[in-house]
Amino acid sequence: MSHQPVVDTKMSEEMDKPLISHRPVDSDGSLAEVPSEAPKVGIMGSGDFARSLATRLVGSGFSVVVGSRNPKRTAGLFPSAAQVTFQEEALGSPEVIFVAMFREHYSSLCSLSDQLAGKILVDVSNPTEQEHLQHRESNAEYLASLFPTCSVVKAFNVISAWTLQAGPRDGNRQVPICSDQPEAKRTVSEMVHAMGFTPVDMGSLVSAREVEAMPLRLLPGWKVPALLALGLLVFFYAYNFIRDVLHPYLQEGKNKFYKLPVSVVNTTLPCVAYVLLSLVYLPGVLAAALQLRRGTKYRRFPDWLDHWLQHRKQIGLLSFFCAALHAVYSFCLPLRRSHRYDLVNLAVKQVLANKSHLWVEEEVWRMEIYVSLGVLALGTLSLLAVTSLPSIANSLNWREFSFVQSTLGFVALVLSTLHTLTYGWTRAFEESRYKFYLPPTFTLTLLVPCVIILAKGLFLLPCLSHRLSKIRRGWEKDGAVKFTLPMDHALAQKTSHV
Amino acid sequence: MSHQPVVDTKMSEEMDKPLISHRPVDSDGSLAEVPSEAPKVGIMGSGDFARSLATRLVGSGFSVVVGSRNPKRTAGLFPSAAQVTFQEEALGSPEVIFVAMFREHYSSLCSLSDQLAGKILVDVSNPTEQEHLQHRESNAEYLASLFPTCSVVKAFNVISAWTLQAGPRDGNRQVPICSDQPEAKRTVSEMVHAMGFTPVDMGSLVSAREVEAMPLRLLPGWKVPALLALGLLVFFYAYNFIRDVLHPYLQEGKNKFYKLPVSVVNTTLPCVAYVLLSLVYLPGVLAAALQLRRGTKYRRFPDWLDHWLQHRKQIGLLSFFCAALHAVYSFCLPLRRSHRYDLVNLAVKQVLANKSHLWVEEEVWRMEIYVSLGVLALGTLSLLAVTSLPSIANSLNWREFSFVQSTLGFVALVLSTLHTLTYGWTRAFEESRYKFYLPPTFTLTLLVPCVIILAKGLFLLPCLSHRLSKIRRGWEKDGAVKFTLPMDHALAQKTSHV
Amino acid sequence: MSHQPVVDTKMSEEMDKPLISHRPVDSDGSLAEVPSEAPKVGIMGSGDFARSLATRLVGSGFSVVVGSRNPKRTAGLFPSAAQVTFQEEALGSPEVIFVAMFREHYSSLCSLSDQLAGKILVDVSNPTEQEHLQHRESNAEYLASLFPTCSVVKAFNVISAWTLQAGPRDGNRQVPICSDQPEAKRTVSEMVHAMGFTPVDMGSLVSAREVEAMPLRLLPGWKVPALLALGLLVFFYAYNFIRDVLHPYLQEGKNKFYKLPVSVVNTTLPCVAYVLLSLVYLPGVLAAALQLRRGTKYRRFPDWLDHWLQHRKQIGLLSFFCAALHAVYSFCLPLRRSHRYDLVNLAVKQVLANKSHLWVEEEVWRMEIYVSLGVLALGTLSLLAVTSLPSIANSLNWREFSFVQSTLGFVALVLSTLHTLTYGWTRAFEESRYKFYLPPTFTLTLLVPCVIILAKGLFLLPCLSHRLSKIRRGWEKDGAVKFTLPMDHALAQKTSHV
Repeated sequence: MSHQPVVDTKMSEEMDKPLISHRPVDSDGSLAEVPSEAPKVGIMGSGDFARSLATRLVGSGFSVVVGSRNPKRTAGLFPSAAQVTFQEEALGSPEVIFVAMFREHYSSLCSLSDQLAGKILVDVSNPTEQEHLQHRESNAEYLASLFPTCSVVKAFNVISAWTLQAGPRDGNRQVPICSDQPEAKRTVSEMVHAMGFTPVDMGSLVSAREVEAMPLRLLPGWKVPALLALGLLVFFYAYNFIRDVLHPYLQEGKNKFYKLPVSVVNTTLPCVAYVLLSLVYLPGVLAAALQLRRGTKYRRFPDWLDHWLQHRKQIGLLSFFCAALHAVYSFCLPLRRSHRYDLVNLAVKQVLANKSHLWVEEEVWRMEIYVSLGVLALGTLSLLAVTSLPSIANSLNWREFSFVQSTLGFVALVLSTLHTLTYGWTRAFEESRYKFYLPPTFTLTLLVPCVIILAKGLFLLPCLSHRLSKIRRGWEKDGAVKFTLPMDHALAQKTSHV
Repeated sequence: MSHQPVVDTKMSEEMDKPLISHRPVDSDGSLAEVPSEAPKVGIMGSGDFARSLATRLVGSGFSVVVGSRNPKRTAGLFPSAAQVTFQEEALGSPEVIFVAMFREHYSSLCSLSDQLAGKILVDVSNPTEQEHLQHRESNAEYLASLFPTCSVVKAFNVISAWTLQAGPRDGNRQVPICSDQPEAKRTVSEMVHAMGFTPVDMGSLVSAREVEAMPLRLLPGWKVPALLALGLLVFFYAYNFIRDVLHPYLQEGKNKFYKLPVSVVNTTLPCVAYVLLSLVYLPGVLAAALQLRRGTKYRRFPDWLDHWLQHRKQIGLLSFFCAALHAVYSFCLPLRRSHRYDLVNLAVKQVLANKSHLWVEEEVWRMEIYVSLGVLALGTLSLLAVTSLPSIANSLNWREFSFVQSTLGFVALVLSTLHTLTYGWTRAFEESRYKFYLPPTFTLTLLVPCVIILAKGLFLLPCLSHRLSKIRRGWEKDGAVKFTLPMDHALAQKTSHV
Repeated sequence: MSHQPVVDTKMSEEMDKPLISHRPVDSDGSLAEVPSEAPKVGIMGSGDFARSLATRLVGSGFSVVVGSRNPKRTAGLFPSAAQVTFQEEALGSPEVIFVAMFREHYSSLCSLSDQLAGKILVDVSNPTEQEHLQHRESNAEYLASLFPTCSVVKAFNVISAWTLQAGPRDGNRQVPICSDQPEAKRTVSEMVHAMGFTPVDMGSLVSAREVEAMPLRLLPGWKVPALLALGLLVFFYAYNFIRDVLHPYLQEGKNKFYKLPVSVVNTTLPCVAYVLLSLVYLPGVLAAALQLRRGTKYRRFPDWLDHWLQHRKQIGLLSFFCAALHAVYSFCLPLRRSHRYDLVNLAVKQVLANKSHLWVEEEVWRMEIYVSLGVLALGTLSLLAVTSLPSIANSLNWREFSFVQSTLGFVALVLSTLHTLTYGWTRAFEESRYKFYLPPTFTLTLLVPCVIILAKGLFLLPCLSHRLSKIRRGWEKDGAVKFTLPMDHALAQKTSHV
């Protein structure tokens, strides 16, 4: 709370053409004004981040002193409202000092440790991936070990220099903070607020390593699902290659290698999309079965199931991506030269055979139906994908979200299954379709989804559905063992899919 | 305001492997620290919600006491920092007690009413749909009637156990609160803030029924538009079925039933999309006409018009969805076996008829033009759909939003009309096109859009446009009657479409 | 901070069927309650905005007095909790007066200047574009010049009457505020907070002109990119028209004008998309080259490069839009009547020539490959487009964002280049392809992307990549001149593309 002044609006006129003139008001609505004295803040360092920090701090009403080893050279880089001086001098009055230096230069401050004693040091550094792996100790902890008389706070590292300077667009950017000194943490939190960000308390300084790892994160939730999709892609591509290209070449000497770029890809993609979609719904069925057997929901699922349940959204989105690519590839089929040649050759053949009318009613129906089902399945999946956008998901309540993800998602699974079944038609039972004894691809993919649909049907039987809903309301079978658990997220997300 | 301590960072180390270690800092930026005593909070109940609540409260620095009828059995389920004890004991010190129980168990607390006297009871319950319909009185009001000496506050029911435990991702999740005791409401609001959510004051406890209905809401804004779209879909499907399938069967004995899955659907979808799009723009025209006739904007529109104006976004999105499906179905047309047979048969017929060159210039032009217009209309609609995403709509100012929705939307309507007109070409005037005296579908759909485009043109005439802009700036014709109204939303949204 | 009461919950019952009953709680969590006296606020004016303001203020617990020249007539328009009276009377007690009038009526308040002395006047007006251009002085400054004894604050003008009344959906709508009187600004900021909006301090009243321009803004970031895209569209359309339509007509007398609506558009769109995509990556390459030559990153880029770097997102999205339209147009190709005629004629020709089998292996391969590459390029671009949605971009950290935009974006550029190269195949070297000595379109577009890909390859050479990464970490070559700059955004965004 701003019993102390945090924003000095007089300052803005002095700034030399600031990139941003926005100064978010302190969150409790006060623009405390004590024109006589703005709170002083020190910055050690003169890199991009130091400069962005200075610009932002000045813009937020702080009085900034920058400590540099070469103030003359450096001064030009900072907003004119910031005072740039020698390191020793910069440390004089401010209570809070931002250390915007590389880790390897921390020790250069040791000569100033007397002047730093009792001050709050804010570590804003971001180690590179290599540094992060190399040091077991976080930068902030290292800084704290160098200056035991100071209160070290880790903050701002997740914010880029650019965001820092331009200000948070959405007024909602979170800044994780940690420190062993609650008072210091509170002071820095107030500054974070005054600068327009939202502080998030991450606890004591041991969390600094975790905080420093945050900007190094690279889509962690996507790794396993993407590898899974890739694996399926490779498997089905190889399988289809053998059946559609290699078999005709070896057995009949036909050169169908032109099928590699489009045709084989387009028989591979729907398999991947379909298997991924079924993998979105399988863990929910397994979880329900486990709960039914155990007779309680208060037992943690095995870790693999837990992780699986948590990655359903990513798997579902990859499924949609593959399905959409499958659609696009399909639309391209009649564009190809090979399609044109096939058509013309068919026509010529018809003429030469003196057949005036070509029409196979069953083939026509098969195709009309599976095309239509495919379009509907894709349409349903696209609704699921759209509702998984954060801004839309946030505007839905739990019931709406689970209606879309669970009900619509299951509809998409059923439509895809029907699409696959009508595509297959009777081919699964024709011997000629088994190349090298390998069954047609679509039969492979049908297994899991059919099990899921059957299981979902079973769970609707009164005896099971009643027991399941009792369990989910908290009922337990006698003797169901309990484990200590903070709460099963798998459970909490139970009804959410994709 | 946190004159009292709300967050105890020491606590985090004691928690047994908490799912979340994030503790959002109190919104006024203070991490008040009085290590000696964290504020005590009681929880009655041991279900999922009680456990999530406990985890979150502990994580936000509260000292939690859980009241259970079987503390030994229950203790393992809660974070170790929470104290689990018998109900009577749990009620001792905390001023605020969360009642995380089913409504039917509320009365079991009656024996403790002496100890509860003067305390704040927070009702977090969510009735099922059935319960909500069964009881006229909200759960919170029922609780208040059981404990007249307590201050009952309704809160947190819109938050799922999962969100509660994981913490709000966007730091912006709203928690509606209501109570008859302002002091109690204030206390709970502070807690909501400390837990990282945004309290929204819903007034006195009579609002509790409304608050309890929120999580039961199921896409209320979509019901009427979805039914409308469904109705149009059924109507046009039947209409097209009669013209395209039944008529050739009955009149000429031709079996065209294979058209049902794709072809008839694909003549139905554009009709639905086009009519829906015109229904987005019709109410705006009606509203303007009404304002012109009344000579004032300070009169409420009739209710049906008001509701219509408010559902334009949903109607527009459904229109886009149908248009997109229409496009996808169209792309699939040349994929179909029937298309291939038709082509081959045409070629054979040409050969047999000894015609060497087939080319109908008019047909070619008709198709090239309407395909191109269709693509452009879809492209424009997709821009409208994208800008109606919450995160994009929020980043636009009013002028930008209305430019996109109103100007681009009208462009889409004009493009769709041209698409339809060129598709129809001269067919509307050929007798052979009237099957069973039914006109071609496209002629049916053209009526409303043409009226709208004409009306928009009329409103551009100087006399009308001048009067209209005067009215919209607040001018009134003499004798224009005024009604009391808090303000016409139809009016406020006037320039917004889709 | 709300040491003074800001919300009176008792008020809600008195309101006559308020459109909104939500009252966001003051951001520091307090619902201060001094039932005896709610803070009084005056409103001058009776238009839509005045009424919405009154509704919102009443809903946020303020006691509202409306000053009108004709209170009897006006009273019915306001919520019954608001007191509507004559202007002179309304000015009595409130400290804060909202001036919700048109600029031309400001002077009508001059007769009341004695009563207004010392009060805070809030200017909420929005000039029209014409007014904004006409007056050099902002409305707020004009108001301040009329009432030198008052504290004038500019606020709320960016909020529409509708949003004001309905309340901010996302609890995050920003309200820029400026004033020369810090105290007045603070008071109004508190009110903004109490009404559920986020105040953003814009400094002194000279900023009012800028604040008043905000709602007049019309997608400023899109103007240049859109014009660029349009220019490219016109150029390539004309170029393709000459080559594909005019040349055959003039040289061979062939009428190919039917190609104008689809075919020529569809050869134009990929060129525009591809050139735009390369223009997204070109400035990054130029910037890196400039840094390498200068030996420092602390020198501002020339303005044109700076602007270019800042518009990459918009250029990239337009590129995606054109690429998507290209895909849709391509899918439509086989739908066209002309395609059907061509096929049939080809078949007839084959029969007449007595050729039984048509197959050109090279043509088949060319098409299969470039179709497949095109689909993959579009898929990659769509991922880039999705991650540039604000709600998704905000959920990514810097590394993730730059991975997607930089790495995936470059992959898309390479895929597009391969798509173009395989589409071209050997045609660039066939003399017959040069119509009127004009090279095929695709050769024109290949120039820039190939330069970019080459340059990116060069920058990977150890000597250059090492120097570049040194420079980007802050190293400088001796004698590298420095300029004063608040910080180069181009630099900050360096790794971000699209």
